[in-house]
Amino acid sequence: MTDHAIVDLARRLPQLRLLSEPGDLEHYGRDWTRRWTPAPRAIALPASSDEVQGIVRWANEHNVAIVPSGGRTGLSGGAVAANGELVLSLERMNRVLGFDAVDRTLTVQPGIALEAVHGAAREHGLLYPVDFAARGSCSIGGNIATNAGGIRVIRYGNTREWIAGLKVVAGNGELLDLNRGLIKNSSGYDLRQLMIGSEGTLGIVVEATLRLTDPPPTSQVMLLALPTMDALMDVFALFRSRLSLQAFEFFTDVALKHVLAHGAQRAIDGDHPYYVVTEFESPDEKTQDAALAAFEHGVEQGWISDGVLAQSDAQAAALWRLREGITESLAPHKPYKNDVSVRIGALPVFLHDIQTLLAREYPHIDVVWFGHIGDGNLHINVLKPESLSDADFIAQCEHVTKLLADTLHKHGGSISAEHGIGLVKRAYLESTRSPAEIALMRGIRQVFDPLGILNPGKLFA
Amino acid sequence: MTDHAIVDLARRLPQLRLLSEPGDLEHYGRDWTRRWTPAPRAIALPASSDEVQGIVRWANEHNVAIVPSGGRTGLSGGAVAANGELVLSLERMNRVLGFDAVDRTLTVQPGIALEAVHGAAREHGLLYPVDFAARGSCSIGGNIATNAGGIRVIRYGNTREWIAGLKVVAGNGELLDLNRGLIKNSSGYDLRQLMIGSEGTLGIVVEATLRLTDPPPTSQVMLLALPTMDALMDVFALFRSRLSLQAFEFFTDVALKHVLAHGAQRAIDGDHPYYVVTEFESPDEKTQDAALAAFEHGVEQGWISDGVLAQSDAQAAALWRLREGITESLAPHKPYKNDVSVRIGALPVFLHDIQTLLAREYPHIDVVWFGHIGDGNLHINVLKPESLSDADFIAQCEHVTKLLADTLHKHGGSISAEHGIGLVKRAYLESTRSPAEIALMRGIRQVFDPLGILNPGKLFA
Repeated sequence: MTDHAIVDLARRLPQLRLLSEPGDLEHYGRDWTRRWTPAPRAIALPASSDEVQGIVRWANEHNVAIVPSGGRTGLSGGAVAANGELVLSLERMNRVLGFDAVDRTLTVQPGIALEAVHGAAREHGLLYPVDFAARGSCSIGGNIATNAGGIRVIRYGNTREWIAGLKVVAGNGELLDLNRGLIKNSSGYDLRQLMIGSEGTLGIVVEATLRLTDPPPTSQVMLLALPTMDALMDVFALFRSRLSLQAFEFFTDVALKHVLAHGAQRAIDGDHPYYVVTEFESPDEKTQDAALAAFEHGVEQGWISDGVLAQSDAQAAALWRLREGITESLAPHKPYKNDVSVRIGALPVFLHDIQTLLAREYPHIDVVWFGHIGDGNLHINVLKPESLSDADFIAQCEHVTKLLADTLHKHGGSISAEHGIGLVKRAYLESTRSPAEIALMRGIRQVFDPLGILNPGKLFA
Repeated sequence: MTDHAIVDLARRLPQLRLLSEPGDLEHYGRDWTRRWTPAPRAIALPASSDEVQGIVRWANEHNVAIVPSGGRTGLSGGAVAANGELVLSLERMNRVLGFDAVDRTLTVQPGIALEAVHGAAREHGLLYPVDFAARGSCSIGGNIATNAGGIRVIRYGNTREWIAGLKVVAGNGELLDLNRGLIKNSSGYDLRQLMIGSEGTLGIVVEATLRLTDPPPTSQVMLLALPTMDALMDVFALFRSRLSLQAFEFFTDVALKHVLAHGAQRAIDGDHPYYVVTEFESPDEKTQDAALAAFEHGVEQGWISDGVLAQSDAQAAALWRLREGITESLAPHKPYKNDVSVRIGALPVFLHDIQTLLAREYPHIDVVWFGHIGDGNLHINVLKPESLSDADFIAQCEHVTKLLADTLHKHGGSISAEHGIGLVKRAYLESTRSPAEIALMRGIRQVFDPLGILNPGKLFA
C-alpha cells in the first residue's frame, strides 16, 4: 500500500531520514511500558529544527498524528505509537550547541542523553544536577516533557528549575524561542514553563538552554536500616535538620530481596523492613561528626536499627546500587508501576492508608515500594505472578489504581509524581486535576495545536 | 446616575464592602505610575474567596471589567483603573492562614504585605527570600502577578521559585486549586506557573502557599567604587567565583548624587562613576579573608578604586540605603522608568550600546542607572526637567524607549525584567515576544477569561 502522505513528506524534505521496516516500526513505536503493540506509520529522524518544523507543517496539512520520541525510557506510554502515527525521533539531534561561561548555561539539542549533559557540564567544571537511573538512555527532551525529577530533587528541584530557554516547534507549526536564557523576564505568560511537563502535546522541543551550577562539595553516602515505617519520617526530619541532604531515598525489604538476587551486595546483616540511602554534603570533619551524632540519636530513639557509612567511592557506589538497581531487578517480573506523590507533611497518614489498601487488594502478590521520601514521592511496583495472564494482571492493577487514586484525591496528592500521565494514567487524571483545570488544559492544547496532531490520546483521551 | 450593575452586585453579596466616594476612586484607581487619571466605577473589598468568585461571576454576567488590586506599588500601570472598571482590592484578605513545619510552607491570603510574610517566616525560624524596597507596601498577590524579582535573585531566584501552590479564581469564574504544595506533580500543564507573571489577566489569586528555606548564615555588606563600566563585569565575575553572593547591585554617580541629597550618608570619598553594593555569606573568618583577597585583587587589576566593608549592622544598613533609597530619592523628579534585562553574558556589549543611545537621545536630561548586574537587569530612570510638560516629556521618553526596545531585540533581551508589561510597556511587547508567542498568549487569555473581563488593556491592547 502506498502511503501518499509519506510520499509527500519525502518529496518536501528530500534530506529527511525516514524508516518503515517492521523492525524499525516496532523499535521506535514503543517505550519501556511494553503494554501496547507498536504500529506507527513510519519513523522520521530529522537532523534540524527546520526539518522538525517541516514535518509539523506537513502533518497539519495531511492531518497525520505525530508522536515525539526521545530515549523512550518513559513509564507512562507517552512515547508509544500504536495507531498509525508518524514517530518523530529526535535521536539524531543530540549535540551540544554551546556553552556560556558567564551565564553558566549549556545549549543542547533535545536528543542528547542526560548522561552526556552531565559530562558536558563536568568538562566546564560545572554541574547539571537533575539525575536518575535512566541517565544513560533518556533524552533531555523527554526529561523536559515530563519535568523529570529523580534522586536529587530534595537538593536541586525538578527539571523545571534548570531550563533557561527552549526553542519549540508548536503544534501549529510556529517556531518559538522561549525566554532565551534570561534570568528576569516579566513580559507576559511564561510559555517555557507551560511547555515543561506537557508531554509532547503542545510542541516539540528542538533546543534547550540548561542552567548549570557549582558542583557540590564532597559528599558521603550512608545506608540505614529502619524498624518501622513511622521511623522513616522521624529519621528524615532528624537528618534534614542536621545535614545538607543531597538525596534521601527509601526502599523496603522486598525491594532489597530483588536487587540482591540481581547481583547487588548486601551491606547490612539481618532482616529489616525498611532501608534508606542518604547522601549529604560533607565538606569537613564537622559534618561527618554531625552525621554520626544524628545516626546515634536515631539509634537511641529506636528509629534506626543499623547503618553503614561508605568509606570509599566504591562502597558509596555499592550502597547506591541497592537503590538504583531496583527498577532493573524488577523488570523480569513485568511490574505494574504507580508513581505517586503527596505533600511531605501528608506522607505519614498516606503511607498508612495505602499500606492497608495494598495489603488488602494484593494479598498474594509481591508489591515493591521505594521512592523519594524527601519529595513526598513513592514508587509502587506490583509484580506479575506467573500464574496470571498479562491482561488479567493489568485489569486487577487498574482496579487497585482506581482505589489508590481515590486515596490520593483524599490526601491532595498526585497520580503522577514524575513519570507523566501518558496513556497509562489518563483514566485517573481527575483524581489530581479538577474538571475545571482539565477543561482549561484542553483549551490550551487547542490554542497550541488546533488540529490535535501532537501526541493525540496522551494526557487526555 | 444609578449603576444598576453595582446595585445587583450589592444585592447578590450583601456582606461585600463597596466604596464609591471620589477619594476612594482616586486612591484605589491608580498605582505608582501616576500617568493615568483614575476613573473606576467602584471599589470592592472582598473578605473571602467566595466573595471574589461571586464578583467574577457577576462581572461575567454584566460584562464589567475588573482590575485586581494589591499594594498598587506597580510601576507599569498594571493596577490602574482609568476606564470605569470595578477595582477588586484584596487588601482585606491579608492574613496568614497556616504554617507547615514538615513541608516548610506558609499559606497566606493575597493581600498580605511582603514584609509581613518575611516576619511570619522569621517567627518559625525560616526565610521567605524574595525581597525588594517596596516590601512594606507591596502585596504577595502583586508579587505573584509580576513574578517579582528584587535584590536577592542572584541567590534565590524570582517569586516563581517559591510558589508551592495557588488558589485562583479564573476569569471564567472557576475556583482552581493549583499544585497544592506538591514538590513533584507531573500531571499535565502546570497552570500555577502560567498564572505567575500573568498580571491579573487570567485569574485572581485568592490564596498562596509559599515555600520557605533556612535563613542564610551571617552575611557581610561591602560598598565598592569602580572606575569604569567594563570593570563592573570583571568585579562581578571575581566576586562570584570566590564568594557566595546574596546580592550584587550597582548604581552610578548620578544615582548617588540623588540619594545623598535625600539624606543618605556618603561612605566613600571622592568622585567615582560606578558603585556596587554586594552582600555575601560570611559564616567564618575564612570567607572574610576571601572577600578581602578578592577586593585586593580587584584593586591591583585596576577594577576597583575604593571600598568599605561594613563593620556593624548599622553600617551595613547605611550602605544598603545608598542603593535602596534611590527610587524614593528620584520620585520628586517624576522619573520615566525602563526596567530591562539581557543575558548576563550579553551585558557588556548591551551596556555600551545603550550608553551611546541614552547619551545621544537625552543630551540635557539626567538619566539615573542602577540595577541587578548579576541578573542582567538594569533600571533606567529618566528625570523630567522642570521646563518640560509631562506630556512632552513622556512623548520624548516613549520615542527613546522604542529605540531601546530595538536594541533589546537585537540582544535578545526583555523590555520588562521584573515590573511587568501593564499599560506602560504594552506597545513594546513585540520587542521581547514574537507575534506567534503573542498570538498564543491571546489564545490562552481567551481560554481562561472568554469575555476578557480581567484587567483588559493590560499586557496586550
